Amino acid sequence: MIKVVFFDLDDTIADTSRLAEMARKNAIENMIRHGMPADFDTAYSELLDLIREYGSNFNRHFDYLLRRLDIPYNPKWVAAGVIAYHNTKFAYLREVRHVRRTLLKLKEMGLLLGIITDGNPIKQWEKILRLELDAYFDEVLISDFVGVKKPHPKIFRKAIGKFGVEADEAVMVGDRLYSDIYGAKQVGMHTVWFKYGKYADREKEYLKYADFTIEDLKELPEIIEVLNGEGADKEVHAD
Amino acid sequence: MIKVVFFDLDDTIADTSRLAEMARKNAIENMIRHGMPADFDTAYSELLDLIREYGSNFNRHFDYLLRRLDIPYNPKWVAAGVIAYHNTKFAYLREVRHVRRTLLKLKEMGLLLGIITDGNPIKQWEKILRLELDAYFDEVLISDFVGVKKPHPKIFRKAIGKFGVEADEAVMVGDRLYSDIYGAKQVGMHTVWFKYGKYADREKEYLKYADFTIEDLKELPEIIEVLNGEGADKEVHAD
Repeated sequence: MIKVVFFDLDDTIADTSRLAEMARKNAIENMIRHGMPADFDTAYSELLDLIREYGSNFNRHFDYLLRRLDIPYNPKWVAAGVIAYHNTKFAYLREVRHVRRTLLKLKEMGLLLGIITDGNPIKQWEKILRLELDAYFDEVLISDFVGVKKPHPKIFRKAIGKFGVEADEAVMVGDRLYSDIYGAKQVGMHTVWFKYGKYADREKEYLKYADFTIEDLKELPEIIEVLNGEGADKEVHAD
Repeated sequence: MIKVVFFDLDDTIADTSRLAEMARKNAIENMIRHGMPADFDTAYSELLDLIREYGSNFNRHFDYLLRRLDIPYNPKWVAAGVIAYHNTKFAYLREVRHVRRTLLKLKEMGLLLGIITDGNPIKQWEKILRLELDAYFDEVLISDFVGVKKPHPKIFRKAIGKFGVEADEAVMVGDRLYSDIYGAKQVGMHTVWFKYGKYADREKEYLKYADFTIEDLKELPEIIEVLNGEGADKEVHAD
């Protein structure tokens, strides 16, 4: 009997990759509009390199971009980048399609819900609160706060411990085959791979750990029914 | 002959003290609304103490607030504070009354305009750009970027040097008698004290360095005329 459904946050609940791309492009455009002597394509590809090297939570992307482009430092251009980046993030943060109706349906089915995510705890909570989704989740586990990263089993064990359930009473839903699906399967949870976003075609070597694959979150309630032996006559594609 | 008018930024061009107060109060309210176990007055006064001790550019105010209130750390409450703080700052940033019409009038009179401000260069530029006031100013000098703080004479000398004018061809307008008025007077600039905001009743020992005192920026064009000997018959109160 399934009692708890856990979700990853980025690109499973919050539509963040697309947002980050928009925010970065708008930042570069605004820097150029305020006089930064660079062309868009060069600056954007340099920014992507920089993010790959320093990580997305590095907080001096725009300073470093100027250095990498051999442009003299000007706080005006950095400010222009910061403004456009934040305005985009605040104005366009969206939930992934069908998130709210799915969460509501799962709640109606009597399930408990949780989030298991990596990343900066304050930034992750900002997304949940800005989307006004906090009331749906009984527990939010952020791996940085526990001191590990997914797929470390500690975060998944801690998650089921919080609810006092067995691993096979829990389902993990996420877009990352490695960190979400392989991670949850290690401790014995049921797994649903959400084939979405930039990881839809990556980490395929871990596909064998996915019990189900979905491309729309609204397929989830039916999968829970199948796992509970209530929907065995219905057509759901188990891998 | 006056050629350049310099302005301070905070509480002279951008109405920032009132904004900061609103933002801080909204942050505390949102933290409490999301479950932080504290009463508003205690938390707000603790936050003010913290800002006094660590400075307003310290970036861990809300983390430290929890510690000072002996409340266990919860990134959700920090995120709630950060969101409300930023939303307020972005939504309610306003220019001081009559800024734009005054800048326009001074431009029509053929004057060059500059800003001389302390503070984090990126944050100061953010205010100027968000207010869409950058086109009015020929030079923006941020003391942190020069490596000094007002009233250090270096920043004022650098300012007149940028325009290639003599000190007595320049006017400094600001709300701080110490950093703006005493500072500018040291290098021989004309000074206009803008009696406004939280410094309206402080640092009175430096009042003797103010050539003029105004309570509304729209009095500035007439003061320039008086300094140029064109408006001597008009009533302007020189201190």
